[in-house]
Amino acid sequence: MAKQEDIFKKVVAHAKEYGYVFQSSEIYDGLSAVYDYGQNGAELKKNIRDYWWKAMVQLHENIVGIDAAIFMHPTTWKASGHVDAFNDPLIDNKDSKKRYRADVLVEDHCAKIEGKIEKEVKKAAKRFGDAFDKDQFLATNPRVVKYQEQIDGILKRLGKSLENEDLADVKALIEELGIVCPISGSKNWTDVKQFNLMFGTKLGASADSAMDLYLRPETAQGIFVNFLNVQKTGRMKIPFGIAQTGKAFRNEIVARQFVFRMREFEQMEMQFFVRPGSQKEWYEKWKETRLKWHLSLGFGADNYRFHDHEKLAHYADAAADIEFKFPFGFKELEGIHSRTDFDLSSHEKFSGKKLQYFDPELNESYVPYVVETSIGLDRMFLAIFSKALQEEELENGSTRTVLKLPAVLAPTKAAVLPLVKKDGLPDLAHKIIEDLRWDFNVIYDEKDAVGRRYRRQDANGTPFCITVDHQSLEDNTVTIRHRDTMAQERVAIDAVRAMIKEAVDIRNWLQKIQ
Amino acid sequence: MAKQEDIFKKVVAHAKEYGYVFQSSEIYDGLSAVYDYGQNGAELKKNIRDYWWKAMVQLHENIVGIDAAIFMHPTTWKASGHVDAFNDPLIDNKDSKKRYRADVLVEDHCAKIEGKIEKEVKKAAKRFGDAFDKDQFLATNPRVVKYQEQIDGILKRLGKSLENEDLADVKALIEELGIVCPISGSKNWTDVKQFNLMFGTKLGASADSAMDLYLRPETAQGIFVNFLNVQKTGRMKIPFGIAQTGKAFRNEIVARQFVFRMREFEQMEMQFFVRPGSQKEWYEKWKETRLKWHLSLGFGADNYRFHDHEKLAHYADAAADIEFKFPFGFKELEGIHSRTDFDLSSHEKFSGKKLQYFDPELNESYVPYVVETSIGLDRMFLAIFSKALQEEELENGSTRTVLKLPAVLAPTKAAVLPLVKKDGLPDLAHKIIEDLRWDFNVIYDEKDAVGRRYRRQDANGTPFCITVDHQSLEDNTVTIRHRDTMAQERVAIDAVRAMIKEAVDIRNWLQKIQ
Repeated sequence: MAKQEDIFKKVVAHAKEYGYVFQSSEIYDGLSAVYDYGQNGAELKKNIRDYWWKAMVQLHENIVGIDAAIFMHPTTWKASGHVDAFNDPLIDNKDSKKRYRADVLVEDHCAKIEGKIEKEVKKAAKRFGDAFDKDQFLATNPRVVKYQEQIDGILKRLGKSLENEDLADVKALIEELGIVCPISGSKNWTDVKQFNLMFGTKLGASADSAMDLYLRPETAQGIFVNFLNVQKTGRMKIPFGIAQTGKAFRNEIVARQFVFRMREFEQMEMQFFVRPGSQKEWYEKWKETRLKWHLSLGFGADNYRFHDHEKLAHYADAAADIEFKFPFGFKELEGIHSRTDFDLSSHEKFSGKKLQYFDPELNESYVPYVVETSIGLDRMFLAIFSKALQEEELENGSTRTVLKLPAVLAPTKAAVLPLVKKDGLPDLAHKIIEDLRWDFNVIYDEKDAVGRRYRRQDANGTPFCITVDHQSLEDNTVTIRHRDTMAQERVAIDAVRAMIKEAVDIRNWLQKIQ
Repeated sequence: MAKQEDIFKKVVAHAKEYGYVFQSSEIYDGLSAVYDYGQNGAELKKNIRDYWWKAMVQLHENIVGIDAAIFMHPTTWKASGHVDAFNDPLIDNKDSKKRYRADVLVEDHCAKIEGKIEKEVKKAAKRFGDAFDKDQFLATNPRVVKYQEQIDGILKRLGKSLENEDLADVKALIEELGIVCPISGSKNWTDVKQFNLMFGTKLGASADSAMDLYLRPETAQGIFVNFLNVQKTGRMKIPFGIAQTGKAFRNEIVARQFVFRMREFEQMEMQFFVRPGSQKEWYEKWKETRLKWHLSLGFGADNYRFHDHEKLAHYADAAADIEFKFPFGFKELEGIHSRTDFDLSSHEKFSGKKLQYFDPELNESYVPYVVETSIGLDRMFLAIFSKALQEEELENGSTRTVLKLPAVLAPTKAAVLPLVKKDGLPDLAHKIIEDLRWDFNVIYDEKDAVGRRYRRQDANGTPFCITVDHQSLEDNTVTIRHRDTMAQERVAIDAVRAMIKEAVDIRNWLQKIQ
């Protein structure tokens, strides 16, 4: 656990030090759970977005992209269920005036009991040494079994209360467990209330005509309300998909873990419209397709797993997460949801307009079923960044910090380094840059010894260093140094472009999944 | 005038019909001054954004990009002056309860007087025929001269009142002119009040700790607050720039002209940090550089002009617009502003933190001066789209509608058309697509006669049609048909990719401006 936390701290510190992620409004001491992407982060984020867009839109004849506004007509969120059901149960401590998610308070309490179990396990492990059988111990030790029963009982009751919206019982549970406010230490709690997670604002200035708006909490609805416009003007035939990337906003009470859960975040969503009855088949197909996309980045299959939902949202008849092994454990990275005809039917009801597709093969009209793939761009960023950040022991006993970003996603593809700052080497380096930068981001670096510059580019995530030396002036060759292997090779200047292009060509990366 | 309006109506209708721009939340009867980009519009917008980013960031060694959040610490907007000075003067009619921009009411009144002048001109032109000298008539006809004096007097007084924030006099002016509410017809007006254009929302749920936030009204401040983070982690040396694209929000009372002025819009801004005293030189350089960028798209220099500001904003020591000839006349497309050290100094004052740069050449620290280039992405979209949309008379007397988008920006680069739906031609067409789509968007179109498909792709803005016929099966050639010239040529299938790549290569377009 301690080690995981250490790794995560390093991720956050490295993200700042190398211009990937800054705290928002840092000079004003920051804004909670909001982050800005720096000069490297902006490019990495953009490259991830493009990688997704190319795979989902450009390469699929039957998927198109749209770019709907963040502001939508407020009835949209009545129809989608967000006005009525997008809530967190909150409770205030009357003494500290602090507000908490009631379910998180209970879960934190359970985590403490979990801690007791771990303590017992450690003690026993020490006592029994090699002979210790953890599974057996957990199943038979009376104290541990009692703790586990406590946890199971609490969580079962919490789940039931929340499902039945019995908020009084959630409060009763908190009181029975004797949970105290971490700030005031008191048990002086208010009632539990539902709090809607959408950010509100007002459109228009007129006192009587101002309209209450929400910042969209998901991009999906922008696709649903445009379904017929896109289908008709794009002459789309079912099955077909509409994709979109863009900002969404959720007023999370407990927003944490860096860019993993933010109040302002970016989604990459695709809604695939299918014939009713075929949704199961498409759901399975998209699970497989999306996992392959993740695997194409080369981090290894053991970092991913499916989590099939048992409890389904009101709109779904099947749902699964692709989970990724973050520094803080396996967590949701992407969701694949079979949303049935819930959204389109609901928009039909609320708008009074038909949202049906005429199927020429069946010669009938119907409301299509929808299979959705939904991924958080910031979360994807964190997955890649945290997995790429590595500390390697070198042969000479020293360590190097290297950011092994997939070359196709790296913010800067190459750094050009003149060996010395004289003899015309900087001029040649700049000449090389002027030519290469038409095709990708290239930077110039002349400060410090070349070995130190290599380390800096390692930490920066730059896959190639191009070193210009005196020999370069004579025979038009340079040294290419590879970030991951640290191997060096001599290459003709004329051949550099093709070599890097090959290494960062999206086709070579994505074709692994075709 | 009527003709301009007709053209504009066609632009809006075509944008919808071909999946470029839809009204937001159209099934709920729309949301005023908010629009969604459809399957073609999303790609065109993305391509414009990339074209700007490549020219500004990728090709400039000393410019980097960031991606700051829409949410910022609220003190940011105190420091920038938006809380105090980002206002419109509003007035309500007590009978209709409708709210208006006071200055617009007065300007509309002047437009009516202008209409009277035009009437006189028309009458006189009819009377005098070929002998009519308009300039002379305007300068000498007593009635017209009187009208013009009225207009000049009104606008002068309005300008002075607004400048002095004398809102009582703005109201007095409205009453003296006898302006009536277009809805109620009454002169029953409230006082004029300043209305802030920023959208507000609340962050966090706790009653006492919720924070009043604004949706950013411009992206520039996200650059200023990150100035030192970027400079230090990116080891930037002055002069250098920070660029950013992203959404901004303004609660415009009078939002109109399609995507020209929206409440939610996207900006592409670059702040260039320079040594104090050198700002004038950089300001001139950026004016020139940015105009060249626009000209690289090939619409012709007569569609652009500079408008130098005489009245400067509180933060500027020089400012100019690049104006574009929209269907409704020359209007601002991009602004180039010499912002002095206003923003950074103000953030120093409000944050208590130093935002200075140590200049190693001068061996001293200072707050840099800033030259900004700021362009509305949606406005740029409208400029390109409206200028590209043309109706051409053909030799045979018919007309064709063609969307002559610059090939580098076109959403779809090529359509592949099998001459007939049989004999294996669709298979070959799909095979060609499967290969080409790795490099750019390609679509398949088999419906209707090939001539009709050409027209459809003309209207869609697709620069190339690739027609597969029976000969293609024999000798592996296809017909390439060019959108703009309608010329056709026979090309080997193997040569198609290189030909299209050449035509859409950003280097070929941007190099025109190097």
